[in-house]
Amino acid sequence: MPEKVLIYSRFPKAQMVRFGERFELLNAAGQAPDAVFSSQQLAGVRAMVTAGATPLGGEAMDLMPDLGVIVCYGTGYDGVDLAAASKRGIAVGHSPGANAASVADIAVTLMLATTRRLLVADDYVRSGNWAAAKPSPMMRPQPGMLGRRIGVYGMGEIGRKIAARVAAFETEVGYFSRSRHDVPYRYFPTLEALTEWCSVLMVAVRAGADTNHAVDADILRKLGKDGHVVNISRGSVIDQKALVAALADQTIAGAGLDVYEKEPHAPDALTALPNVVLSPHIGGHTLESHVAMQDCVIANLEAFFAGKPLPYEVKLG
Amino acid sequence: MPEKVLIYSRFPKAQMVRFGERFELLNAAGQAPDAVFSSQQLAGVRAMVTAGATPLGGEAMDLMPDLGVIVCYGTGYDGVDLAAASKRGIAVGHSPGANAASVADIAVTLMLATTRRLLVADDYVRSGNWAAAKPSPMMRPQPGMLGRRIGVYGMGEIGRKIAARVAAFETEVGYFSRSRHDVPYRYFPTLEALTEWCSVLMVAVRAGADTNHAVDADILRKLGKDGHVVNISRGSVIDQKALVAALADQTIAGAGLDVYEKEPHAPDALTALPNVVLSPHIGGHTLESHVAMQDCVIANLEAFFAGKPLPYEVKLG
Repeated sequence: MPEKVLIYSRFPKAQMVRFGERFELLNAAGQAPDAVFSSQQLAGVRAMVTAGATPLGGEAMDLMPDLGVIVCYGTGYDGVDLAAASKRGIAVGHSPGANAASVADIAVTLMLATTRRLLVADDYVRSGNWAAAKPSPMMRPQPGMLGRRIGVYGMGEIGRKIAARVAAFETEVGYFSRSRHDVPYRYFPTLEALTEWCSVLMVAVRAGADTNHAVDADILRKLGKDGHVVNISRGSVIDQKALVAALADQTIAGAGLDVYEKEPHAPDALTALPNVVLSPHIGGHTLESHVAMQDCVIANLEAFFAGKPLPYEVKLG
Repeated sequence: MPEKVLIYSRFPKAQMVRFGERFELLNAAGQAPDAVFSSQQLAGVRAMVTAGATPLGGEAMDLMPDLGVIVCYGTGYDGVDLAAASKRGIAVGHSPGANAASVADIAVTLMLATTRRLLVADDYVRSGNWAAAKPSPMMRPQPGMLGRRIGVYGMGEIGRKIAARVAAFETEVGYFSRSRHDVPYRYFPTLEALTEWCSVLMVAVRAGADTNHAVDADILRKLGKDGHVVNISRGSVIDQKALVAALADQTIAGAGLDVYEKEPHAPDALTALPNVVLSPHIGGHTLESHVAMQDCVIANLEAFFAGKPLPYEVKLG
């Protein structure tokens, strides 16, 4: 008898295939588990898989009295109430680093696209305005990467990979993180100082209560009118309303965003702007990073069912 | 009396300001010089500035009997009939490397945008299809950069800078060039062999009769259905009709193009495709590369008028 695993968030079917080969899946697909399954079905569920950003509190955990492990698909676990899990003796696992290269790649993609105004450029060609030599203020030459100061906020696995990629563009790289790391980039003791120095701010910090709205109107003002902000972390790290205002009145030059305050959704005020590049939270969305994340999920689940410690465990408090 | 300099191609005014401070400019702005200026005005013109891709043959040179130097704004000089210049004792100058970082950056921008389908992603967010969870086959996960084989065609200054940037994405880099270079990338003796091996082909070779349509239907077939081609060199290097066909029937996955067979123009068959990213020949189009290219033009002109050898000279045959 395969073990039962509840799938809590809504995932594309293709991402669940390998789990289905090993376990009996109860797929709630983003709905409340007790709206989809009877309490009899939920009894005996000892493990669940969730997306780290999906809110998951004690009440949902209590629907499965035998729950022993919550496994997040991906690096983040900001939606999981860790205190509630800890109180119930539920372990939490994730997939650290499995998607780091893929997420760092999207960060650089967004950085290059916003600073070089790639969407405007593509539209200029497709619309025929280029052939017609129609003047376009948005197509004026912009500062490039050579010698540009790039600030990386957060120096975890993703931040380090962003820094390594960005440095190859002959830029100067600086970073702010709670502590200094053994990396060949200039350290800034505060986000304010980093932002004063840099003209592109790459947000790669782990989301949490301490980083909520860390990038606010004041930080954006410090970034300045040649400045760009790129976010591949979580929407909560940036005050989205302040960002829209700063983009609309050109307090900053542009933004590249893979994450938003309320997903899956980008507000009309943001999508109407010409100086943003938007992607639908696809940072970790490559074939190889999905395989790597699934490897972590399977390793966590198999260890749990074998009564062993999780190989990729989130430390609870 | 400042020396007269004929401006042959059509350039944005902002790019001519520094030349105007030093020389008396006769701006033909892309028209035939004798349609804009009298033969009296053209007499005494000893120098001209042109865009390297603009066709410039012996007949145009003969409109200025005193012409002694043709200075190309940028790296390329493929439009200039070098044999005709040589025959007339006219020196040819260019701006080698001045825009190499900027062009390499656009190459990587296009590579990342086409492989990660950035335009499709942005449209998916802006259209509201993401919020509506509308299925999109174009949004399926694609291979990322990690371990991907990137082939660089041409190992000049731009090719080397492309390779250095691309290597930072944890890829494998190979190249084909007429000769082996002292670089830490795998050498392939033919374009065919490089294309069989790689899944992204970065075209960075100098344009000329020998590279005309070097990337043809056969090469595109070898690139294969997961393959992408990026061109920041000249449109002439790729058989554009074969490329459109390969993109339309998915012989290859996608393309990122900064250059086209007939500029400024991208054919409707190309602009209608969802699996391309198009930019209007903006490779060298950053503030700092324009300054660097202008520095080269001014250095070439001042040396010529002082009777000295050009510091940035094109070797004629």
